[in-house]
Amino acid sequence: MSDILSRLADVLEARKSADPETSYVAKLYAKGLDAVLKKVGEEATETVMAAKDGAPERVVAEVADLWFHTLVLLAQQGLHPDQVLAQLEQRFGLSGLEEKARRGG
Amino acid sequence: MSDILSRLADVLEARKSADPETSYVAKLYAKGLDAVLKKVGEEATETVMAAKDGAPERVVAEVADLWFHTLVLLAQQGLHPDQVLAQLEQRFGLSGLEEKARRGG
Amino acid sequence: MSDILSRLADVLEARKSADPETSYVAKLYAKGLDAVLKKVGEEATETVMAAKDGAPERVVAEVADLWFHTLVLLAQQGLHPDQVLAQLEQRFGLSGLEEKARRGG
Amino acid sequence: MSDILSRLADVLEARKSADPETSYVAKLYAKGLDAVLKKVGEEATETVMAAKDGAPERVVAEVADLWFHTLVLLAQQGLHPDQVLAQLEQRFGLSGLEEKARRGG
Repeated sequence: MSDILSRLADVLEARKSADPETSYVAKLYAKGLDAVLKKVGEEATETVMAAKDGAPERVVAEVADLWFHTLVLLAQQGLHPDQVLAQLEQRFGLSGLEEKARRGG
Repeated sequence: MSDILSRLADVLEARKSADPETSYVAKLYAKGLDAVLKKVGEEATETVMAAKDGAPERVVAEVADLWFHTLVLLAQQGLHPDQVLAQLEQRFGLSGLEEKARRGG
Repeated sequence: MSDILSRLADVLEARKSADPETSYVAKLYAKGLDAVLKKVGEEATETVMAAKDGAPERVVAEVADLWFHTLVLLAQQGLHPDQVLAQLEQRFGLSGLEEKARRGG
Repeated sequence: MSDILSRLADVLEARKSADPETSYVAKLYAKGLDAVLKKVGEEATETVMAAKDGAPERVVAEVADLWFHTLVLLAQQGLHPDQVLAQLEQRFGLSGLEEKARRGG
């Protein structure tokens, strides 16, 4: 399961040459950066609402949507989820979880 | 690298019994759900700003912060990142990327 | 010009009995609280993006959209913009701008 | 009460020459645009959380915080709340509430 992020990244890369008429992701790319960022903001708000409702299944679904659209953002920017994981790894491995979070905050 | 999310989940689980005085995560848990959700919202906004600045390194760093705080949320709710990955996997594997995104939208 | 908020509040109140098929606001009411809150989150993100673009006209337009949807929220909750203005007034008048902002922060 | 926005705008303008050590707003100006935008995002998230909690007094307080920080943004950008009110007025007066909202959406 753990390579799902990389596999998703591959598909998102391939979607760059897909038809915006038939591909949701290609349509997002075609609309441009602001459309992707708007989705990131939207899914963050929906994550907040699901958590406030105390609905665990919806929290999982909304976090999935949020991660998905950040993956679209990474692809759109020519970035890879491994860079994000490496950053989490580096902070976690080198300096401990607390220090990472503080810098991250 | 791909198991970093699971390892982070383990650490975040362990932090539930840590001292809020010395642990950033334990302090977030102690403050309660709203404090965690506020961080999710903040990091989403910072991701948007980094992308608008055209700063790829900051996009990676902010997405890392955003994922990190959604992992804290999952832990706080008794959920695991594998559930999020399974959801992405299921949508991706069963029905194709496009259908998933559309339902997710 | 300064009574536009009250006039908008009157119209938003009247829209509670309008047809969701023909009225944007009535449709939002019908969808429920989450739909209104989603719009508040969206317009906040769009305000951030307009400001990052250095586009003053768009900042004005997005802040107008943001205020508009908070007015819809107030109406949906049975609240009035005068209560918000009174809160700003009270903080401003009684204790000075700085103290207000700090409590507000 | 209805001129509170203009009076706040005057004070926010005057704060541009205040000491960041003693003035919350001057400190925000000194930190720059991203700090102001981060507050706009934060207060939007807090408005969402207050509404989800069904806490009307907190909704009023959070909307006041949100409006306040958009006023700081307007001041920082050399804009005036009357421009926002004029936009709401124009949309409302010329073409009706529904059309405005739709364009604004």
